[in-house]
Amino acid sequence: MVEHCTENAGVPGSSPGFAIFLFPMHSSTEAIVLVTCPDRTGIVAKLTAALHETGANILDAAQYTDESSETFIQRVHVSWEGKQPNREALQASLNGVIEELNLDLHIKWGDETHKVAIFVSKEDHCLHDLLLLQRDGALHCEIAMVISNHPDLQDVALRFGIPFHHIPTDSDTECIQLSLLQEHGVDLVVLARYMQVLSPEFIQHYENRIINIHHSFLPAFVGGKPYHQAHMKGVKLIGATAHYATVELDAGPIIEQGIIRVSHKDSIQNMIHKGRDIERTVLARAVRWHLENRIIVHHNRAVVFD
Amino acid sequence: MVEHCTENAGVPGSSPGFAIFLFPMHSSTEAIVLVTCPDRTGIVAKLTAALHETGANILDAAQYTDESSETFIQRVHVSWEGKQPNREALQASLNGVIEELNLDLHIKWGDETHKVAIFVSKEDHCLHDLLLLQRDGALHCEIAMVISNHPDLQDVALRFGIPFHHIPTDSDTECIQLSLLQEHGVDLVVLARYMQVLSPEFIQHYENRIINIHHSFLPAFVGGKPYHQAHMKGVKLIGATAHYATVELDAGPIIEQGIIRVSHKDSIQNMIHKGRDIERTVLARAVRWHLENRIIVHHNRAVVFD
Amino acid sequence: MVEHCTENAGVPGSSPGFAIFLFPMHSSTEAIVLVTCPDRTGIVAKLTAALHETGANILDAAQYTDESSETFIQRVHVSWEGKQPNREALQASLNGVIEELNLDLHIKWGDETHKVAIFVSKEDHCLHDLLLLQRDGALHCEIAMVISNHPDLQDVALRFGIPFHHIPTDSDTECIQLSLLQEHGVDLVVLARYMQVLSPEFIQHYENRIINIHHSFLPAFVGGKPYHQAHMKGVKLIGATAHYATVELDAGPIIEQGIIRVSHKDSIQNMIHKGRDIERTVLARAVRWHLENRIIVHHNRAVVFD
Amino acid sequence: MVEHCTENAGVPGSSPGFAIFLFPMHSSTEAIVLVTCPDRTGIVAKLTAALHETGANILDAAQYTDESSETFIQRVHVSWEGKQPNREALQASLNGVIEELNLDLHIKWGDETHKVAIFVSKEDHCLHDLLLLQRDGALHCEIAMVISNHPDLQDVALRFGIPFHHIPTDSDTECIQLSLLQEHGVDLVVLARYMQVLSPEFIQHYENRIINIHHSFLPAFVGGKPYHQAHMKGVKLIGATAHYATVELDAGPIIEQGIIRVSHKDSIQNMIHKGRDIERTVLARAVRWHLENRIIVHHNRAVVFD
Repeated sequence: MVEHCTENAGVPGSSPGFAIFLFPMHSSTEAIVLVTCPDRTGIVAKLTAALHETGANILDAAQYTDESSETFIQRVHVSWEGKQPNREALQASLNGVIEELNLDLHIKWGDETHKVAIFVSKEDHCLHDLLLLQRDGALHCEIAMVISNHPDLQDVALRFGIPFHHIPTDSDTECIQLSLLQEHGVDLVVLARYMQVLSPEFIQHYENRIINIHHSFLPAFVGGKPYHQAHMKGVKLIGATAHYATVELDAGPIIEQGIIRVSHKDSIQNMIHKGRDIERTVLARAVRWHLENRIIVHHNRAVVFD
Repeated sequence: MVEHCTENAGVPGSSPGFAIFLFPMHSSTEAIVLVTCPDRTGIVAKLTAALHETGANILDAAQYTDESSETFIQRVHVSWEGKQPNREALQASLNGVIEELNLDLHIKWGDETHKVAIFVSKEDHCLHDLLLLQRDGALHCEIAMVISNHPDLQDVALRFGIPFHHIPTDSDTECIQLSLLQEHGVDLVVLARYMQVLSPEFIQHYENRIINIHHSFLPAFVGGKPYHQAHMKGVKLIGATAHYATVELDAGPIIEQGIIRVSHKDSIQNMIHKGRDIERTVLARAVRWHLENRIIVHHNRAVVFD
Repeated sequence: MVEHCTENAGVPGSSPGFAIFLFPMHSSTEAIVLVTCPDRTGIVAKLTAALHETGANILDAAQYTDESSETFIQRVHVSWEGKQPNREALQASLNGVIEELNLDLHIKWGDETHKVAIFVSKEDHCLHDLLLLQRDGALHCEIAMVISNHPDLQDVALRFGIPFHHIPTDSDTECIQLSLLQEHGVDLVVLARYMQVLSPEFIQHYENRIINIHHSFLPAFVGGKPYHQAHMKGVKLIGATAHYATVELDAGPIIEQGIIRVSHKDSIQNMIHKGRDIERTVLARAVRWHLENRIIVHHNRAVVFD
Repeated sequence: MVEHCTENAGVPGSSPGFAIFLFPMHSSTEAIVLVTCPDRTGIVAKLTAALHETGANILDAAQYTDESSETFIQRVHVSWEGKQPNREALQASLNGVIEELNLDLHIKWGDETHKVAIFVSKEDHCLHDLLLLQRDGALHCEIAMVISNHPDLQDVALRFGIPFHHIPTDSDTECIQLSLLQEHGVDLVVLARYMQVLSPEFIQHYENRIINIHHSFLPAFVGGKPYHQAHMKGVKLIGATAHYATVELDAGPIIEQGIIRVSHKDSIQNMIHKGRDIERTVLARAVRWHLENRIIVHHNRAVVFD
């Protein structure tokens, strides 16, 4: 009755014993509508009516008005209740309200799957977490590749059946990276403890589509070795921040933050250890919100409809 | 059976219906011994033996070795179990170990009560909290006075029977404050949302004996209007930091920090409102630790034996 | 320049030095619309259109579908943008959609102020917090009275200018309480550490309008002395729960919960002390949500649109 | 310069790119001394002196007095500063103080490595976390085997080079498990989401040496499907509890607890997903504390010297 199996019989990418379905079935008859426009009266009523006319039912809606810039922002989850809407016709029928209200409107269809590239260096706690979550159905995306400037984490990627690209850091690096990303249609780059600074050119290719995890409670401890800075400063809490990468280092729109308590007893190594749980949790949450189209960036602030 | 009492029959400073005794009876036969010295082997054994020889029983002990500076730090709670120790004889009998180990040693006797001055401006949430906690026995101190640069909070102080000094801000202010503090033997100044910057001269009079509450998660958002800074930055958590005031603004040893979650929906006013709960809780905890002689400052970091 | 004021010159209920306005001006031209109905397609579109037809602008909207009971729940914040809507006409114009969709619909006008009675016994930390928050404009209500089975907290109420009724516990108590509540038009009862169990008859008079703070993380530690239970059990976190009182003790719909860390070092008295910060914070948040009409109770669960 | 590696080249158990050393070198010249005894005066002084006489330096010490049972508990970290102590002589030289003070004294040597068996069923988030932490040096132990009543997680164990035993549930199961544990000298069993109840006989073999993770905030939601219970109850926080398994289900000494916020919007599946982060973090912390000999169980409560 007992099986002794000390030899490697594992099958990379094999199906898990346990699956989570956080989402309704991702179907071609559902969509997320994201809207930004100058604030005025009647927006909700007019947009709702326009969607309703196409046969859409509103499953969920959340809105926010930024008063300093007088901007209206909304996320609407709509369903055509099992019927295939004609997407061109839909877009056309929305054109009236788009023009009238000066809407910046994006439709994300339920059957469109994000393609993600994960960039890493040598630490694997965030990578593992993302791979496990995606495998369990908790991240609605395809992970197209793992890219690293070091070879160390190749086996982690391969165990999960994900292509791994070792691209050492030199003058060509970003050129090679970009060409890989474009070749595979990647639309989200996750910097899962990638210890290189990306150039402004790279970042502009993926504006608001590069999520970085910084191991401090930003804006405290920008730049390198934040746990060392925190230790020297004697803080009582350490944190992690997931944000969109922008040209200014560690200053992009903040998506999520978390903290954990430390004391004088915690060495820098202990802080690094404690921080790992926060880093991976905060990053995973930010990635999930992006993939579920819950984030709208407005004036360098991330509005998250969670 | 029903008493209708709409007139003011309250007696300021009257005894509460409920009292908390967080401490053992503060008696003349107990003391806290605080020690800092160069690290070497045998410190604990020798100090313990020296205390034991005086008849002291060790009720609690906590220690910490700062490895970067090779410094040993210890807090020992001792009791002479109801017998009055001869304090001069005790000090004399410890001199040997003090000299041998090069100890910086302080004895805080259980019957020595800290005298506290609370500095405020117009906001009263921290003041209320400290007054209520002291009244309930949760802060082992005498609150000697409340000092403010505005008259607004006079009635709060007086309700609790605490003298209130309105000292408007001008060139004489600190001179008057210092003379009041010295006249009444104040040994701890609590800046409970006091919106003035103290001069280096003032601070040096009360080194490591001025506790300030700053309404941000330091070192983020130093200086004025931290909630405005936090709102503009779009952070997802706001914080508060209790620290000893030093000459450099908002850069003194951090005693305690706390945070609360915010989102894009929170206006600056909402952040201010949410932050108040954190500010008062964090400040009260820091003050309590100071009063219980739980804090040793070493190289601008606060070692808290909580 | 210095004013020494050791005599009581405080004026109860005097205006604070600092005021918070968490709300938009509470005007007669704004309302919160609360809706519960069987789930079906088109609800949002139809209700939005019906409101729009009355000239209402939708400032905010949040919705939730309870899938187990197939129930749709929505909270809509509407504004007539400075114009006085005819309330009878409005109600009439909504009747069509109410009937069509079988809506349970309530309109809470911005100029309707909740009237609150706070019940206490001897502990005053929650009472103080509620009185301070209301004074600062953070709780949109009138506090009509404080009722207690003990005389101890009379002076606290009176300092804030709130009528205090000492109603000792005997067979007439609830009868007297109810008559006071009705006489003053009270619509929310807050049990701010009131140590008596209310009868089913009393509770039914104020269904989903009695908020209690229980000093444990429910459903753990129902009933008396929860901190003693927690200490005996050796838990590492203690909590507090604000809930609507129902006939079953400590089992009503949970509005908010909070926790704080404890350890073996914490005596029961220490737990009581630590718990107070959580109790008052959790209770204040629950009361604020109720007053802002953010809570809809459905099948003994509180849906909170925060 | 670019290596495309889509084939599996991973080496199970290969060295990580990043290692954490949370501990001082685990050497044969260091030990943890754990003491429980009836409280009286002079214990610390006498024990310290006895250790000092053996040449031991006290690197750290923490103590606790349980007042209800008048019991003194202490954990002392001692070092012979690079010299090999004679262990028999040490024990002999401590016998005097053991007898005099009626000490229950245990010495855990730095070069003694705990041997751990991890029991799992089908969910792998806790298993992954423990394996990664052990690989990175953050758990000072040897993981001797993974045991499961299902075959699903075999490949996870094998990737890390850990023997996997699939022992289906039947009448012989525990007999086979126990014989495996004893054969390999396992001294700690970790139930990392093992979905079977162990018999009293099994538990008694490993008293205070079986750590279970229960996916609720105990004592709330004992037994099966705690997230379902939590969802039905409408709680606003969900939790996880690591505890020593005892004969009474989910009632053993609590080592650590954590919580995460939920709302009415969270489906049971979402709660399960959110809870996973808490479960693995709480379990890992409890296991680490056990391995570092930081836990002393006294009267069904776990004293954790963290």
